[in-house]
Amino acid sequence: MSNLSLSRSPHTAEVIRFAAGAGFRDLPAEVVRESKRCILDFLGVTIGAVDSEAGRIARDTALELGGAPQSGILGFGDRTSVANAALVNGILSHVLDFDDTHFPTILHPTGVVMSAGLPIGEWKAVSGRDLIAAHVVAFEVAARVSLALHPHHYDSGWHVTGTAGTLGAAVCAGRLMGLEGGQMAHALGMAATQASGQREQFGSMAKALHVGRAAAGGVLSALLASRGYTAAADSLEGRRGMFQVMGFGADSGELTRALGERWEILQSGLKPYPCGVVTHAAIDGVRRLRDRHRVCAVDIEKLDLRVHPLVLELTGKADPQTGLEGKFSVHFVCAVALLEGGVRPRHFRDETVRRPDLIELLGRIVPQADEGLKQTEAVLSAHLRDGRILTEHVKQASGTPENPLSQEELDEKFLDLVEPVMGRPAGLRLAGLVENLEELENVSELRGINHV
Amino acid sequence: MSNLSLSRSPHTAEVIRFAAGAGFRDLPAEVVRESKRCILDFLGVTIGAVDSEAGRIARDTALELGGAPQSGILGFGDRTSVANAALVNGILSHVLDFDDTHFPTILHPTGVVMSAGLPIGEWKAVSGRDLIAAHVVAFEVAARVSLALHPHHYDSGWHVTGTAGTLGAAVCAGRLMGLEGGQMAHALGMAATQASGQREQFGSMAKALHVGRAAAGGVLSALLASRGYTAAADSLEGRRGMFQVMGFGADSGELTRALGERWEILQSGLKPYPCGVVTHAAIDGVRRLRDRHRVCAVDIEKLDLRVHPLVLELTGKADPQTGLEGKFSVHFVCAVALLEGGVRPRHFRDETVRRPDLIELLGRIVPQADEGLKQTEAVLSAHLRDGRILTEHVKQASGTPENPLSQEELDEKFLDLVEPVMGRPAGLRLAGLVENLEELENVSELRGINHV
Repeated sequence: MSNLSLSRSPHTAEVIRFAAGAGFRDLPAEVVRESKRCILDFLGVTIGAVDSEAGRIARDTALELGGAPQSGILGFGDRTSVANAALVNGILSHVLDFDDTHFPTILHPTGVVMSAGLPIGEWKAVSGRDLIAAHVVAFEVAARVSLALHPHHYDSGWHVTGTAGTLGAAVCAGRLMGLEGGQMAHALGMAATQASGQREQFGSMAKALHVGRAAAGGVLSALLASRGYTAAADSLEGRRGMFQVMGFGADSGELTRALGERWEILQSGLKPYPCGVVTHAAIDGVRRLRDRHRVCAVDIEKLDLRVHPLVLELTGKADPQTGLEGKFSVHFVCAVALLEGGVRPRHFRDETVRRPDLIELLGRIVPQADEGLKQTEAVLSAHLRDGRILTEHVKQASGTPENPLSQEELDEKFLDLVEPVMGRPAGLRLAGLVENLEELENVSELRGINHV
Repeated sequence: MSNLSLSRSPHTAEVIRFAAGAGFRDLPAEVVRESKRCILDFLGVTIGAVDSEAGRIARDTALELGGAPQSGILGFGDRTSVANAALVNGILSHVLDFDDTHFPTILHPTGVVMSAGLPIGEWKAVSGRDLIAAHVVAFEVAARVSLALHPHHYDSGWHVTGTAGTLGAAVCAGRLMGLEGGQMAHALGMAATQASGQREQFGSMAKALHVGRAAAGGVLSALLASRGYTAAADSLEGRRGMFQVMGFGADSGELTRALGERWEILQSGLKPYPCGVVTHAAIDGVRRLRDRHRVCAVDIEKLDLRVHPLVLELTGKADPQTGLEGKFSVHFVCAVALLEGGVRPRHFRDETVRRPDLIELLGRIVPQADEGLKQTEAVLSAHLRDGRILTEHVKQASGTPENPLSQEELDEKFLDLVEPVMGRPAGLRLAGLVENLEELENVSELRGINHV
């Protein structure tokens, strides 16, 4: 490792030392607790996606390609190679748009890093402690790469979960394979040069493919590096490296500012609703109108929504035609919340988008951009047919670091997702294993119960 | 297909129709002839790379991952999945830096498209005619995507063979799987959003990984699309699509200008030397000095090289330390040509770079940038110890469209590469099959002889 400082920019060299070196004992208790919450949430949203068309196609493709039976595909349980498992896990983890969020950058870290890490952990029979440490460290690296590139990278059209996520996946896989510093440096470099995924794909199945490819790319990078494959010395910060090419004006200092002291996992949140986080404050507001004021859809003449401009940029689709498009329509998700009381994955089936009662309601929901609001804030004014106007101001959406999902809400979300796939008893047992993950000797026990 | 024009930009829609629709009968005879030359060259440079460390690691990794025995890895002959074969083929095809070049954009098209296409062709037992048509059409699409993005894309640090190459690989694989237009559109979209590879990796093994990942990404895109996986309608030209995100100011019109009439394969060349094309004019010049004037290294006090500025930007390494770095040193390759009479893959072994006679010579080779020269042009002035000055002006490097490799030179290059791997008789038989490729009923015959 001594030559790292000579051949690499100091920020990259420090990140590599951290990626290969930090261990479970270095993690504060609250970080371990949040890691286990993220991992439980990841298992729920991934296993719960087995009914998705994207997930089914990905799994069938992986089975056709075949592979050594190194690890299981989550939810389905088929044994395949670690690369195939990472690909399918990654697609499953993101296809419901229900995975965790790093709020400063809108990166979704756990899906991509654990989709790579869990197959490697199972293959290498690592301990629960090592899995937690790999998750936290990989999350940290992905989030810091994302911070370094923010905001120009995302603004210019990159899907940061696909790009920065590839580096996180390489770190997670690399740690669990026991890469030393020099190998980790090459794995990270290979991940940097494989980073891809454009935001044009939002609303198509290819959005989730970004996560699958990032996870599989991370696994491949770690495997190749373990055998001596090399990347450029300065893959991140070099003149033609990732930061210059994909993020003009990237701030490399973000890689190392208080590294090992400030933990980005504490800046993340678990989603209460399976759609873009920017819609969550509005959904919270609709639920309050319904629960606190007993307002029904028929009572409402017009529902004014004031939201941050990004909400309309990302989810301004007023007339969604498919379930997937429904996720990118703040009108639609608010209509669902008003009629159904909550927003669940089943609401994004194509037949739901065609329901006349929902379509009729869409026209009465009128979002407006307001620069003065945060992205996690919303002000709703319901104009009722009886002349009253009810207002709700959601200052901080649920599922944000400031207003986190309670353990009960998380458990409910998890069971709601996994019960149809694996049954309630197995679901409860899996939740129990994750609750005591630091005691687990071999994480392949997590796999054994992922399919009934 | 009728909805393509509604949902996609017209240039993309036309390219998709061409990619899925153009057939062998649409190809002029000179295009077919050039395709067969490119394919022979591809087989040579790929099979000839089995001794490379990158190739060996990639193959060992693929075998560890395992896969259904759908096709063979070139050179090695192991049976594995089409995705694994594409990955390893792609790395092999580029690792010697000896594969063909599309001169307008410095794209290396055949390696990436055939690394994807040959495994699919073998798996599906397609005919030689279909393979040729797939090669030509995929070459065309990759080259036109590359033209659309040129020059900003490459200048800003993207390795266009990794990026545009992914789309070519998807087209080649998709055609040989029989994708119809709608599926091809989704395959192309998935390829666009997987495009990656930064020029920082030049000089490391990760450069060849770009080609392997592009080929495997193209195969994956075609497989997923064949089962109904979708991408965004306007993945190339949309607001957050590949052209905007990776190539500010991209000229989409290049996709379709005289499409099916002007053939980009006729703008390409086969390399006489296994190093960057920008050094080839200088090497030609050194060989002329040696052959025409019987100049030896000891006679030369100083060798002035005047070359286009890009030559120094890409290959200005005056003091290479490894064989790989030697490829990026115009000093080194000229020194090799002067001492050895030619430049072969064996000259880029690490021990060659440490040869004292070569190191001593490096200091006497003095390149200078000259804006007035083309990239394929060089002016050499050898200052001899006896006071004479000999000058050679290479107006057009060998291996360019204007000064193509002769059939004899190509056959010699091919046999020089494959003979150590498969022996001369099998090499000659393989060359014969390619010579009559349009008569071959099943291209898996090409595989049967790729290993002794």
